[in-house]
Amino acid sequence: MKKSDTESTGGRSELALLGEIRRRAARTSRGGLRLGIGDDCALLAPRLGEELAVTTDLSIAGRHFRLDWHQPEAVGHRALARGLSDLAAMGARPVAAFLSMGLPRELTTATARRPAWVQRFLDGLLALAEAHKTPLAGGDLAESPVAVADIVLVGAVPRGRALLRSGAKPGDLLYVTGALGGAAAGLARLGELAEAEPGCSTPPRIPRKLEALLAPHLYPQPRIAQGLWLQRRGVASAALDLSDGLSTDLAHLCKESSVCAEVDAALVPIHSAATLAQALNGGEDYELLFTAPNTAYMPRSVAGVKIAKIGRIVKPRAGQPAITLLTQQGPQPLEPHGWEHFS
Amino acid sequence: MKKSDTESTGGRSELALLGEIRRRAARTSRGGLRLGIGDDCALLAPRLGEELAVTTDLSIAGRHFRLDWHQPEAVGHRALARGLSDLAAMGARPVAAFLSMGLPRELTTATARRPAWVQRFLDGLLALAEAHKTPLAGGDLAESPVAVADIVLVGAVPRGRALLRSGAKPGDLLYVTGALGGAAAGLARLGELAEAEPGCSTPPRIPRKLEALLAPHLYPQPRIAQGLWLQRRGVASAALDLSDGLSTDLAHLCKESSVCAEVDAALVPIHSAATLAQALNGGEDYELLFTAPNTAYMPRSVAGVKIAKIGRIVKPRAGQPAITLLTQQGPQPLEPHGWEHFS
Repeated sequence: MKKSDTESTGGRSELALLGEIRRRAARTSRGGLRLGIGDDCALLAPRLGEELAVTTDLSIAGRHFRLDWHQPEAVGHRALARGLSDLAAMGARPVAAFLSMGLPRELTTATARRPAWVQRFLDGLLALAEAHKTPLAGGDLAESPVAVADIVLVGAVPRGRALLRSGAKPGDLLYVTGALGGAAAGLARLGELAEAEPGCSTPPRIPRKLEALLAPHLYPQPRIAQGLWLQRRGVASAALDLSDGLSTDLAHLCKESSVCAEVDAALVPIHSAATLAQALNGGEDYELLFTAPNTAYMPRSVAGVKIAKIGRIVKPRAGQPAITLLTQQGPQPLEPHGWEHFS
Repeated sequence: MKKSDTESTGGRSELALLGEIRRRAARTSRGGLRLGIGDDCALLAPRLGEELAVTTDLSIAGRHFRLDWHQPEAVGHRALARGLSDLAAMGARPVAAFLSMGLPRELTTATARRPAWVQRFLDGLLALAEAHKTPLAGGDLAESPVAVADIVLVGAVPRGRALLRSGAKPGDLLYVTGALGGAAAGLARLGELAEAEPGCSTPPRIPRKLEALLAPHLYPQPRIAQGLWLQRRGVASAALDLSDGLSTDLAHLCKESSVCAEVDAALVPIHSAATLAQALNGGEDYELLFTAPNTAYMPRSVAGVKIAKIGRIVKPRAGQPAITLLTQQGPQPLEPHGWEHFS
């Protein structure tokens, strides 16, 4: 963790912020971290025979979150959740997280009455980091006209055991964890709340009765335990996490595996607040989508999260769509409908 | 490498850009990279007994570079050089680089007559990556109102052999690689060139006779070979790279090692175009600053780059400054004067 900005403009507040991050990060779990914040690099010690999995996810105000819609704690949680979810999709255990942040001055300024936006962002990020025993090991800080946070996750997985997108075979069955569409439904409801207070520059107060409904959007849970289970059992032939929505992410899996897929609409686990369209096309659910041979045993749940069979992998045929949705009205092509961020 | 942005606003150009990056990255050296762009994470395979060194560096338009001052190739080169220099300071060999980029739409748009800004940025970044056999292994892309690039470098170093900031001992001698102040002198000259064309939104054309003068600023060379040499010989007790300027970075080293330092002004290797003040306080030289026991043999150069003894480490004493500059007029305190980015 460095301060890659000038002292003359960044001033004491950034150095103080750096010190605070360093102190708070030092209290998180260490695990495979040999050297954390304070040197030119962090040092990570993988175990014998392990490979390292690395992913980066950029969050930009106005694109991936809105300062007037999202509580800072949720922005911090979601930034880290995106990276942890990528590790889950590889079947990797988290080793360390890194955070590069560019922030407007006003988001780093605390008053006597309330903490700075960035302190609350760190509250959300570090709580999720602690839940997954992932130390914050470094990063970078600078002043920026727009708030940006790039989160880097490093995980470890035994050599040759990572879950790839490219291993699905015709005949394999298609599964998802949890329920789909909850994040899209929550976002829609959050938008209604925010627009009920026009002109307000701070996020809406969330009524207690809506907390559960908004949780899939504001506090998605990366499926680390489920990814590790799949990797250790060696049952998944391919896997990825649902960040862009089922229709888009399944298309990625099919492309990387050179296969096609059939999804049975009646089998898709739809979140109680969501529609089928949100379950098929809504993004940011961060559930795992994976394939396994039809001979593999699959339990109904792993570590408390349901596993649902939703379809199967088929051979590509000329003139056939990459993904077919089986409905009561017959088969129809399922086109990728990517997630629309707020912009 | 993902596209973490909507297709409806990002559109085909971002997918095309992602494809181009993937193709170009695939042509770079692979080394310890087992799986590159295209899955949820990249996979890196360290060698037996190696630790991983990880660093992130954020570059923001208007803070770390200016679109109207810097050629895009130089911005790409400098972004990667900052990360490679952190690896050099640990004595690590580069394994992989990751790039998270947020860009305004106009910087991703090519015309029939000229390539997009981002293509030229990649030209600069990938040329330096290739020179150091560092594959571009992943990252993230999004649209952003301001250009930001977070570069992540992963390196490897034999367990327990990394060069830290914290190992300097009283009596150790203080060394730097290369010459100092060249980047600050080059930046000052670049500013004059840019201001000679007021109102121009593109970087100034650089006259051939000025190329060598501006090179330390526009194309700094990370001291990977020198860091590896120090690590393999085991002669350095502490090291870091000069990113903020000698006076500031030496203060970091002293703080982390709980020591003080004396610098002999007459021994500081000043770049031919620079002043002593620029050599002491100018940032972004990306030379290595290191300490070694006074019994250690130190050659005059390593891999073609000069090594200069500039002072020594002393015990902290009450009332004494952390760093003392020895001059013909006698000793004087050397206060940290951090690098001022353009803002």
